[in-house]
Amino acid sequence: MSSPIYLGVIGVGGVGTSFLHQLARLPNAPKLILLARSSQTLLSPTPSYSPAIPAADWKTASTTPSLTTKGALSPDEIAAYLSSAPGRSILVDNTSDPKLAASYPVFLRQGISIVTPNKKGFSSDFSHWKDIFESAAQGKALVYHESTVGAGLPVLSTLKDLVATGDEVTRIEGVFSGTLSFLFNTFAPVGGADKQWSDVVIQAKELGYTEPDPRDDLNGMDVARKLTILARIAGLEVQSPDSFPIESLIPAPLAGLPSSADGIAQFITRLPEFDGEMAAIKETAEKQGKVVRYVGSIDVKSKEVRVGLQQFDQDSAIAGLKGSDNIISFYTRRYGSNPLIVQGAGAGGDVTAMGVTADLLKVMERLH
Amino acid sequence: MSSPIYLGVIGVGGVGTSFLHQLARLPNAPKLILLARSSQTLLSPTPSYSPAIPAADWKTASTTPSLTTKGALSPDEIAAYLSSAPGRSILVDNTSDPKLAASYPVFLRQGISIVTPNKKGFSSDFSHWKDIFESAAQGKALVYHESTVGAGLPVLSTLKDLVATGDEVTRIEGVFSGTLSFLFNTFAPVGGADKQWSDVVIQAKELGYTEPDPRDDLNGMDVARKLTILARIAGLEVQSPDSFPIESLIPAPLAGLPSSADGIAQFITRLPEFDGEMAAIKETAEKQGKVVRYVGSIDVKSKEVRVGLQQFDQDSAIAGLKGSDNIISFYTRRYGSNPLIVQGAGAGGDVTAMGVTADLLKVMERLH
Repeated sequence: MSSPIYLGVIGVGGVGTSFLHQLARLPNAPKLILLARSSQTLLSPTPSYSPAIPAADWKTASTTPSLTTKGALSPDEIAAYLSSAPGRSILVDNTSDPKLAASYPVFLRQGISIVTPNKKGFSSDFSHWKDIFESAAQGKALVYHESTVGAGLPVLSTLKDLVATGDEVTRIEGVFSGTLSFLFNTFAPVGGADKQWSDVVIQAKELGYTEPDPRDDLNGMDVARKLTILARIAGLEVQSPDSFPIESLIPAPLAGLPSSADGIAQFITRLPEFDGEMAAIKETAEKQGKVVRYVGSIDVKSKEVRVGLQQFDQDSAIAGLKGSDNIISFYTRRYGSNPLIVQGAGAGGDVTAMGVTADLLKVMERLH
Repeated sequence: MSSPIYLGVIGVGGVGTSFLHQLARLPNAPKLILLARSSQTLLSPTPSYSPAIPAADWKTASTTPSLTTKGALSPDEIAAYLSSAPGRSILVDNTSDPKLAASYPVFLRQGISIVTPNKKGFSSDFSHWKDIFESAAQGKALVYHESTVGAGLPVLSTLKDLVATGDEVTRIEGVFSGTLSFLFNTFAPVGGADKQWSDVVIQAKELGYTEPDPRDDLNGMDVARKLTILARIAGLEVQSPDSFPIESLIPAPLAGLPSSADGIAQFITRLPEFDGEMAAIKETAEKQGKVVRYVGSIDVKSKEVRVGLQQFDQDSAIAGLKGSDNIISFYTRRYGSNPLIVQGAGAGGDVTAMGVTADLLKVMERLH
């Protein structure tokens, strides 16, 4: 029999809630001993670290008797609690909190493995990236973060396998944002469509496909963070997501509006003023028999990372993308002119949580 | 420091040779102590199990002094040798030998893990499949066989993650044979082509894309074996690759020709007699604006597995496939109407070996 593995989970938003559902249905699940949302923390009582917290959902967990309830704990306090558990422990960070991500080395050095869809830790300064993996080696802990790119799609694991087995990755290209995929598949589909850019943005916002402030999608930063992670795994020392060109789709005059509800409302109201600019970009592509898409690309040899609009042939895989799907193409020496392609939903609670749960299972297999 | 891991490798054909090249370039490679081809076996001398065999290639290995040289060893003898090594051991089977595959339980029960692209062990009787995984559990050994389907493409790992995290896989569909992909992408591309079926088969044979006897590709058995493996991972108890319909592309009058060089020559000579039949199938599809492709599909709910010709819309991903690429689509509850798709080269020594090497690294991570 292997010894039990102890689990701390932070974040009970969309991904966090889906993850708890998946966790509750795992055979051989680890023992959930810490569950936290922004202002509250549930803990299995020390020193026995039992009973475990039921994984079903926050409500069930928070009404379970014999658990310890506290306010928000600091990363140091959480690390101290987990590292004193009578077995190996894993922290699942289902937040997008940069502060928690900044503390990963603290956890890792104490032997606590990290599983997370939170991009912040892996796409900030390169020194932090190095610190994370050096701390993991030092603490003999593991770090899995498949869902930071393409949600549950096998993107990072595939790239890591290519690199680890000695293939030479020459180029990575794709559509990395479900939101921007939807916007361009709807605004400029193969065969054309008679739609205004602003209408498509508003539709996406109403469907819940955009962040509360659509500018958080249109600024390209989310894509830039994902490219930073991929480029680093491919061996490039990208200093930060600001160290390469990012084409923002926010009209310059609207970039300065505040991110308050009022600012967002003003942005939406004024966006139609710029429909002509986007229509011109679309038509330029169409005149050449192409379509325009918002893509990210990494040229490994020339160390060039780019995020922005590009034209594609109408019969290309990128042009044919549907809905809010992601597509990622890996060009390598072994795969030659036809890339290895991974495609599918790259956003959404259930598929993002799936990547987290699959990572958790892999970490558990390695810790046993 | 972790204890060393000992490695036995059988088979030095196309995949075996590529694998040895990749193995030789791994940092932290396991100790190669057994290397065998059909009639010869190289061994590190017992009881020290050292020196290790250089992994570069068969010629270098076989001319290395201080190794023990023997003829072909039986699976029992190989298992006895590996299980007595002073650490955990792994057998990499780079053959397509059904006899060796039949012995996997012998290795696994003795704690020897298996990594292989050999389909035979996983696509014969269902009782053998069960025996393999029960033996692995009993011997606390691991079995990784990613390259049995789609070569190095992340197909089995993706399906296993979907199943393990509790997604409901409803349908798997795709082009699973590089050879049949090339034949149909060339014979019936989107937009049409004026080619005779027999000419395309001969071209593929001359390019080395077919087995020495092209009927070994055209009979659909290779695809049926892959579907058997996928269906079993998806939870279906497929008894054998013969237990579902397989559409053979060998004209009935030519199926009985011997598999000798003379029989193959006769097959090639007489194949043009049947060009009219294949042209009719192509034209029927074209009249409906479609193209014909040779695909495999698994309907998990109705437990239906099928291998054969099917028509596809010209703008579908399957119709747009290039060269000898594979494409595999997973339809699941979480992914909804847009499947998770993996696409790329599904055959060839280097990419198949890459799947084997990646599996080897994963097994090593778990054994440490």
